[in-house]
Order: sequence, then structure tokens, then C-alpha cells
Amino acid sequence: MNYRSMSRSEQMEELQKQQANLEVLKAKGLKLDMSRGKPGKAQLDLVSDILTVLTDPADCIVDGTDVRNYGILAGLPAAKALFADVLGCKPEECFIGGTASLTLMYDTIAKAYTHGLLHSEKPWCKLDKVKFLCPAPGYDRHFKITESFGFELITVEMTPDGPDMDQVEELVKDPEVKGIWCVPKYSNPDGIIYSEETIRRFAHLKPAAPDFVLMWDNAYCVHEFDGDYVPFPDIISLCREAGNPDMVFEYASTSKITFPGAGISVMAASEANQKYMQKLLGIQMISYDKVNQLRHVKYLKNKEGTIAVMKKHAGVLGPKFKMVLDTLEREIAPLGIAEWQKPKGGYFVSVNTMDGIAKRTLALCKEAGVVMTSAGATFPYGKDPRDRNIRVAPSLPPVSELEQAMEVFCVSMKIAALEKLLTE
Amino acid sequence: MNYRSMSRSEQMEELQKQQANLEVLKAKGLKLDMSRGKPGKAQLDLVSDILTVLTDPADCIVDGTDVRNYGILAGLPAAKALFADVLGCKPEECFIGGTASLTLMYDTIAKAYTHGLLHSEKPWCKLDKVKFLCPAPGYDRHFKITESFGFELITVEMTPDGPDMDQVEELVKDPEVKGIWCVPKYSNPDGIIYSEETIRRFAHLKPAAPDFVLMWDNAYCVHEFDGDYVPFPDIISLCREAGNPDMVFEYASTSKITFPGAGISVMAASEANQKYMQKLLGIQMISYDKVNQLRHVKYLKNKEGTIAVMKKHAGVLGPKFKMVLDTLEREIAPLGIAEWQKPKGGYFVSVNTMDGIAKRTLALCKEAGVVMTSAGATFPYGKDPRDRNIRVAPSLPPVSELEQAMEVFCVSMKIAALEKLLTE
Repeated sequence: MNYRSMSRSEQMEELQKQQANLEVLKAKGLKLDMSRGKPGKAQLDLVSDILTVLTDPADCIVDGTDVRNYGILAGLPAAKALFADVLGCKPEECFIGGTASLTLMYDTIAKAYTHGLLHSEKPWCKLDKVKFLCPAPGYDRHFKITESFGFELITVEMTPDGPDMDQVEELVKDPEVKGIWCVPKYSNPDGIIYSEETIRRFAHLKPAAPDFVLMWDNAYCVHEFDGDYVPFPDIISLCREAGNPDMVFEYASTSKITFPGAGISVMAASEANQKYMQKLLGIQMISYDKVNQLRHVKYLKNKEGTIAVMKKHAGVLGPKFKMVLDTLEREIAPLGIAEWQKPKGGYFVSVNTMDGIAKRTLALCKEAGVVMTSAGATFPYGKDPRDRNIRVAPSLPPVSELEQAMEVFCVSMKIAALEKLLTE
Repeated sequence: MNYRSMSRSEQMEELQKQQANLEVLKAKGLKLDMSRGKPGKAQLDLVSDILTVLTDPADCIVDGTDVRNYGILAGLPAAKALFADVLGCKPEECFIGGTASLTLMYDTIAKAYTHGLLHSEKPWCKLDKVKFLCPAPGYDRHFKITESFGFELITVEMTPDGPDMDQVEELVKDPEVKGIWCVPKYSNPDGIIYSEETIRRFAHLKPAAPDFVLMWDNAYCVHEFDGDYVPFPDIISLCREAGNPDMVFEYASTSKITFPGAGISVMAASEANQKYMQKLLGIQMISYDKVNQLRHVKYLKNKEGTIAVMKKHAGVLGPKFKMVLDTLEREIAPLGIAEWQKPKGGYFVSVNTMDGIAKRTLALCKEAGVVMTSAGATFPYGKDPRDRNIRVAPSLPPVSELEQAMEVFCVSMKIAALEKLLTE
């Protein structure tokens, strides 16, 4: 029954019931972590054959290059071809990075700050003010990067089709607005796939700043956990066709395909951007790990091989997400105290509670030994203006633990909601 | 016979003879590369067992950490212990990086520029002027990093004991002087080991800038190719004892121990510096490749194991350096047209010709198909004021090719010297 339809005494009674439930759960002494989108051990075991695909020194020489030695700043041609196949762009538009695409994103923003981007009039550190658009809820590590350089973060609303493009188109008329963070497929945390129209409008943006940058983090480009692979358009071609060839930088990695602690990553961009950025990147490095690049090429082979590996992950992740979504549907949906998307890929379920109870919900979870991503983390400066968004990350715990964690989560949310309703 | 003691006609005759020699060499159509300190294939093969030390997924879990997964920004404790053993510092003073210590050095300077160092009053990008000391001849990639941020590079003379400390102590009285590049053991390119006194004076520096940084690139810390391992002091302890605990950042890597294209690296610094830097580094990365860190721990084990691997490299490198030094001694020493150190470690032989003939020598080499590091590269802005320093990198070519390359080099230098003498 919807909590709002209850009488005050019914609400009081229900609160006492749920408080008793929580005490029972607390007594179990749980210690469960659902704070980050971290693959579980079963997933790591599934892909551990990558440890043995490259053991013969003779295999280290590819197209005349000894991957064991110095050289090839932008990465192994075969690794570029692999990512180009997955992303739908050209191999020469790819720069291969190390374990984290986050580092490549940071580098892009850092270079903009210290040296400027290809079309910058001056380095951003020489400007009085830089503003950056942050569709929220979004990825806390994105926001942190731009926050760390002192930019002003501007929140853009998320819709079921992606960022609110009316708002974006209006905001980019300000020449101090220098860029935007995007996760176009299975957005972090909502799991939304940007609509064709949203993506088209992004490609056709007419920002006032000549060096406006579309930070296109395609982190979950092949990360379906339910159903078949969903194709996506090549943003680099779309921007080129729209007359914005150098506006976009796209990122991806194998972090949730092979090993999160030992994968490879890519920064894809126009050849003009690559030329400009590689001149700067060449001062800071010789090349990322080419032996590991070759391991990934041998293990994943191409887009088809990559999607086949992702099917295996889906076998582990699918049941976890189903459990989370089923539990929410059963325990929370009838109460009218929260809403959520039902993603078919990505790593999160993003729950929007009634206003003002996200922090309290997570504090109660913590008392019962369940750690979730901090409330507010999905907003610029870690501040959720409506205190309602909670990111659930079901990937790390085994299903048995996840069940207990979700029980704690639902009971906590019920208590927080009732407390709130009773003070209104 | 010393060229300067020759009569003009003897010089003319000798020039014609050497020009004829060069024509014979040109006719061979050589294509030899001695431009960079790149290990040769035989060295890579010697250490290729590292490809097979970690193939069992069960071995990936160390001290409760699954190295395949996200986490541990500063690196695997076992990898910190390995580098601490090699460098003589504490494990908690180590931050483990990826394939290139160059990237860690760049990050230090970049963070100083964008955010400031621990004791900075403001980020260096907010200062009117930053000056940086560059002992020369030195490492071109060091100089490039500080040049790329627009710092003014100030040349410091090298002596057989290391940088001229009288000059250094005088220059650091200028608060705009923010740091210095050092390669304390087998300096690049001279192969000089800084004397105890030089190192003591560095530790006791009293720079005017509170955030002066000693960039201590211990790139060749275990890189003897002739004779036994030579111990070196722990610069971090020395600076601490001298009351400069946070002045130094030390760097090293396995680039010339295991694979240059796939090694691990370290940034060592006081715990206060680590705390400050890791807060900034945590925004740009999750962690470097922990699987590869574990591979290195299993393969190298500790300092003793590392030195044992270096002995194997010495077996390949030693004869190459002997050949270079013997050839110079036989062909050039009697002529009085150049001088050089006789290093027992490192990756280079640094030849100082008579003034004004380095460029011409290398141009002649190039005509005969031998590429060397560009003349001037070992000086700030790529400009050798006396046009005399040439860095010889004998590691990459097999001995047979090296012999031909050295023949070309000596003949070219003779011609350049004679041309010069004849115009005086």
C-alpha cells in the first residue's frame, strides 16, 4: 500500500515494524560493499585465460615491432584496430592508453588547462573562468576531474533520452562553457541510452567557445547484461558530418571486459586532434604497455570476440541485476516512495527516492553493515539538491550477499520515508 | 698523430684520405640506429621468462588483494617493497607507476604547474616566471618536460663529480628557481656517478623557493655493465636528515631491467609528499597495472634478484661498450680532437669533440646511413652552445653492426675536425 495513502497511525505502526526488521538485520553483523561498479571474482575468473595468451617471446614481434621494447607512442596498430572495430571509428583516430580511460580523460582536461586544446585561444589556466556542464545524476569521478581544476560545474538535468538538450543548447551559448561530460550508452548511474535525437543534437551543437569539448565516455559500449548487443552510432563521424570534427573526444576501456586492474583503454578523436594531443602526450610518455595491448588483441580479437566475452559476463551480472530490480519492484514500487530506470546494461541501478531521504537511507544501511555509494556522489560537488539519488552497484557481491544487502536497503528506505512523512 | 700538430698540407692529405674512407663506407648502404638508449633483442630475450611467471589466476590474490580488480592507487605493497629494497627507502615512500618513470616525472611537474607542490604558495601556472636548472649535457626528455610548461631553462655545468655545486648553490638563491633535474648514477649521457660530496651538498641545499624540487631520476641505479654493483645512498633519508624532507622526488623503473615497453616504475618521496600527491593522483587514476606489478615482484623478487638480472644484461652490453670505448681510444684519442668519460654503467658514451664540429660529424654519419642522437639534444632547448657533445647509444645494434657504425662515426669526426682546422 502506498505510504502516502496511509493514515498517520498506520504510518507509525509500519515504521515500528520496519525498525524491528532493521534491528534483526543489524544483529546479523553484515559487512557488505555495494559502493562501486567493481566486477566480482566470478567475472575475473571467466576472463583469466588472458594470463596465458602471450607467453612465447617469438609472439612478441608483430608487424616488425617488438612489443617488449620502447616505441609507438599511440599504441600497437592491432590494438587501435580492435578499438576502432568496437567503437566504429577509424584506427588512426585511436590513441591506446593504460589501465584507465579515466587517466586519458584527465589528460585531455589537464592539457586544455595547461596548453589549451586544438582550437583554444589560450590555455584554460589563463582564463578568468571556465564552466563545465555535468548532466546529473552522473559519474562522480568525471565531476571531480573538472572540479579539481577549479572549473564551475553546472548541473544539467537528465531525461530518459539523455541530458536535457534544450538546456544544453542554451548553456553552450556562453563562451565560458567549455565542455560537457557524457556517458552515452547505459549512462552512469541511470543506465539510460541516449536517444538518436539527443546524439544528433550533440553532434550539431553550436557552442560559443571554439574549443568546447564533448567528453564522450563510452564506458559501457558493449556492456549488456540483459539481451543482445545494442548498436550505437560513431560520434566522431557524426560530429565530422555536422561540421564539428574536432569537438569530441571519445573514451572506452577493457576495465569491465578483461581485468579492471590491468586492462587497456582508448582515447578516440579526429586525426587533427590526435596530431595535436600526441605532440603533447609525447612529452610525458614513451608509450603505454604494448605487451598488454598485444595480450588484449590476442584475447579479444575484434568486436565480435569482445561481444562474446561480454555474453559471459552477462551470465554472471544478469541474475544480480534481476534480483535488484525484482526486489525493488516487489518491496518498494507499491509504496510510492521511489522510482528507477530498468537498465539492460551498464553497472548500476539508479534509485530516485522521494525528496530528502537519500542520505538518511544510506546512513541506516551503514548502521546495518551495508556500504553504498555516498548520497550526493552522483551530483557536482557531491551535493544532490533534492537528496534523493542513490546509486546501487550490484556487481561485486555474490547473489547471496546481494539479497541481504537489498533487504537492508529496502528496509532502510522504508524507515527513512516513514520518518519523513511523519514530520510533514 | 695529433691533428693540431700537423702541417696544413698534412691535414689536407689526411682529409682526402678520410673522405675516401667515408665514400667506401657510404657505398655499403648502411642503415644503423644508435639514436636512443634502447636495449637490443638479445637483452629482451634474456628476461622473457617474465611472460610466464603469472599464468595461474589463483596466484593473482596476494595478501587478500585480487590484483585483477580495481583498487590500491599507490600500487601493490609487494611492488613498493621491491623498489624500496632497490632504492634503500621505505615502502611507504613509494608510489608505483606504469611503463614509464617519465610519466611520473611529468606528473610531478604538471601538478606543480596546475595545483602547486606541498609547500607551494600558489600553483606555478599563476607565477610570472619559473626557472629550472638543467645540468648539461643531460637528458633531452627531462628538459622537454620543463620547456613544455614554458619554464626558463638554466644550464648548469657538469663536472666529473656531477653538476657544478658552486653554481647550483648560487642559482637556488633566486626564488624563481623552482627545481633541478638530476641523474645521480651513470648520468645521462656522461655516465658520471655523482660524488658523495655532491650528493651531500644537494641534500643540504638552501633554496629560496619553499617548493624547490630536486628531480632525482635514478634511472640507472643498478645498471652496471662493467664490474660489480656500486652502492648509492638513499637521497630521501639524506634530505630528511639535512632538514629538507620534502625537497626530493626520486624516480626509477624496470625499463632497462625487464621490458622497456611493458615495465613498472616508481616515484619515491617523503610520506608527506606522498599524501599530498596521491590526493591529486587519485583524481586521475584508479591504479596502475597491478597484474604487471605482481609479475615483476615474482620475477625480480628483491634487490639481489634485480642485480642478478642486471648481470645478465651486462653480459650483452659490456662487450658493446668495450668495443665503443676501445675504438675511440684507438682511432680518436691520439688525434686530440675529442674527450669522453669511461663509464662502467648506464646506457651512453658521451663524446665531447673539439668545439663546433658535433653537428657536422652527425650530418656526415647520416650521409653514410648511421643515425645518432641529434647534436644539441643533450642541452636545454636542443642547443649545445659549443656544438661539441655527441651521445653514443651502443645498446640496440648487434656488435657486428656497431663496429660498422663506430667506423662511420670515427671517420666522420675526423673529417669534421680536419675541415674545421683547415678553416682556422
